[in-house]
Amino acid sequence: MREKEFIEIIKNTLNSNYIGDDCAYLKDLGIVISQDNLVEDVHFSLKYSNPYQLGWKSAMVNISDICASGAEPKYLTVGLSLPASVDNDFVENFYKGLKSASKNIEIVGGDITGSDKVFISFAAIGKTEGRKISSRKNAKSGYKIIVSGQHGSSGAGLRLLVQGKKGPEKFIKAHLMPYAQIDFSKQIAEKVKEDYAMMDTSDGLMDSLSQIAEASGVNLEVDFDKIPYDKDLEKFSDFKDLILYGGEDYQIVAVVPEYIAKNHTVIGQVKTGSGVSIIQNNTVQNFSKYDIEKKIFNHFGK
Amino acid sequence: MREKEFIEIIKNTLNSNYIGDDCAYLKDLGIVISQDNLVEDVHFSLKYSNPYQLGWKSAMVNISDICASGAEPKYLTVGLSLPASVDNDFVENFYKGLKSASKNIEIVGGDITGSDKVFISFAAIGKTEGRKISSRKNAKSGYKIIVSGQHGSSGAGLRLLVQGKKGPEKFIKAHLMPYAQIDFSKQIAEKVKEDYAMMDTSDGLMDSLSQIAEASGVNLEVDFDKIPYDKDLEKFSDFKDLILYGGEDYQIVAVVPEYIAKNHTVIGQVKTGSGVSIIQNNTVQNFSKYDIEKKIFNHFGK
Repeated sequence: MREKEFIEIIKNTLNSNYIGDDCAYLKDLGIVISQDNLVEDVHFSLKYSNPYQLGWKSAMVNISDICASGAEPKYLTVGLSLPASVDNDFVENFYKGLKSASKNIEIVGGDITGSDKVFISFAAIGKTEGRKISSRKNAKSGYKIIVSGQHGSSGAGLRLLVQGKKGPEKFIKAHLMPYAQIDFSKQIAEKVKEDYAMMDTSDGLMDSLSQIAEASGVNLEVDFDKIPYDKDLEKFSDFKDLILYGGEDYQIVAVVPEYIAKNHTVIGQVKTGSGVSIIQNNTVQNFSKYDIEKKIFNHFGK
Repeated sequence: MREKEFIEIIKNTLNSNYIGDDCAYLKDLGIVISQDNLVEDVHFSLKYSNPYQLGWKSAMVNISDICASGAEPKYLTVGLSLPASVDNDFVENFYKGLKSASKNIEIVGGDITGSDKVFISFAAIGKTEGRKISSRKNAKSGYKIIVSGQHGSSGAGLRLLVQGKKGPEKFIKAHLMPYAQIDFSKQIAEKVKEDYAMMDTSDGLMDSLSQIAEASGVNLEVDFDKIPYDKDLEKFSDFKDLILYGGEDYQIVAVVPEYIAKNHTVIGQVKTGSGVSIIQNNTVQNFSKYDIEKKIFNHFGK
């Protein structure tokens, strides 16, 4: 909640058109840029991740932001602030993870400083040539909602890690070493002619749906049974919450015209109205932006 | 020292040509990009800076990186990680400072998260069209060494702040609200035809000279009496150290052919050899890279 309040203050102070999407689209330069901060014990824990996994995931999180814009991921810069306890092996393995995750993407510099906790910042740059760039305010009534991959696995993995469990390993791996949806993004951005909306599910599927609905002034209606997920999730009593709110799957949600949707997994459609409607067993549940925010992990822990 | 060791590890792991200068030059996109992390109690203290000043300086530090490359500063992204103690006023005033410092430069997004100390990360983008881009490895024997502005004032200001003194205010202001040398950089980068070296003096004049000498495989010979400084610095017993090692003046040192140097303040020249030579009263003092590193503020505090 506080994060959103701060963003309002920033928007008002800067009076800028660029604040809103995860990437800023710099048309004169033909690029998009995104920036992320990853803070120890807020965004990751060295109890769960080794340095290689942390490097991998950090890169993927930022590549995913570029994918969500529709641009081609090209370059990453990395700023690392490290406490005195961190040794050479940490740096080497972190960069090995980073490099493995960054196929066809060049790491071109950054910064390295001291700090009392591990603090990682990234800037990612994507090239827009030949791509149509998305914005979350571009969902239109009649468009279809499509998704990449499976949802909820990463949230389940985090739960297992916190509980000190070793498996199922596939969920833990989904959490520690996600994949950015480079191909899915490319297929859409190279083909679509109209304005469209696209986000990654970094903060959960419902968050992405809610942000798109809010920014576009529409209602997103989703058929729960069409959302792809790993059936082993059903062993968790609250598996539906994991699927809808779990976060960090880094899948893509796109809201696109029907001719784009037809080769993909369609989970719903855009209607006039507001908020997100979830249909299951012929029952519709309506969620306002506030209903959804209440449920979502708040970066400030309140 | 540790920072430099980490950079070697990163270079070896990535096997990249882009690590070395403060900015990465992405020729295919016609841009340079730089990234910086600023960590509370490492790079700044909220005891000395108010949020407006912190915003101002953070922006200038990053704009200065772009100026050092010779590119035209165009865009900034900002990642802010804030502890729970930070309030709306902090965010508003930080962004006001940021905006005041960023004339003709657009702030285009970023990230906002929680943390236990204030962490600020920046990415800055410059446009290279019509400019020749510098590299610290391009100093050549026979080139002249030129500088912008005055040196040592910021270091003096920091000393006064740490000692709890209120003045001379000009030194404190030089430390808290420096100016990036946008015009100086433009004059050189638009006019020079040959490869040349340029850095800002973020870590002190001697550090910049030493880095250029080392990367270029040359000796930089500087006439101390030609270095411009505020005469009131002489009230500090070690004013020569403040001028040479003080840091955070964000002036520019450029090593350029004579026809570029002639309209600027020339402080020395490039010779064959290595390290930095300081001439004063007909006496030459030679400093190796190691001599200089020993004196320089180490970001890790050791």
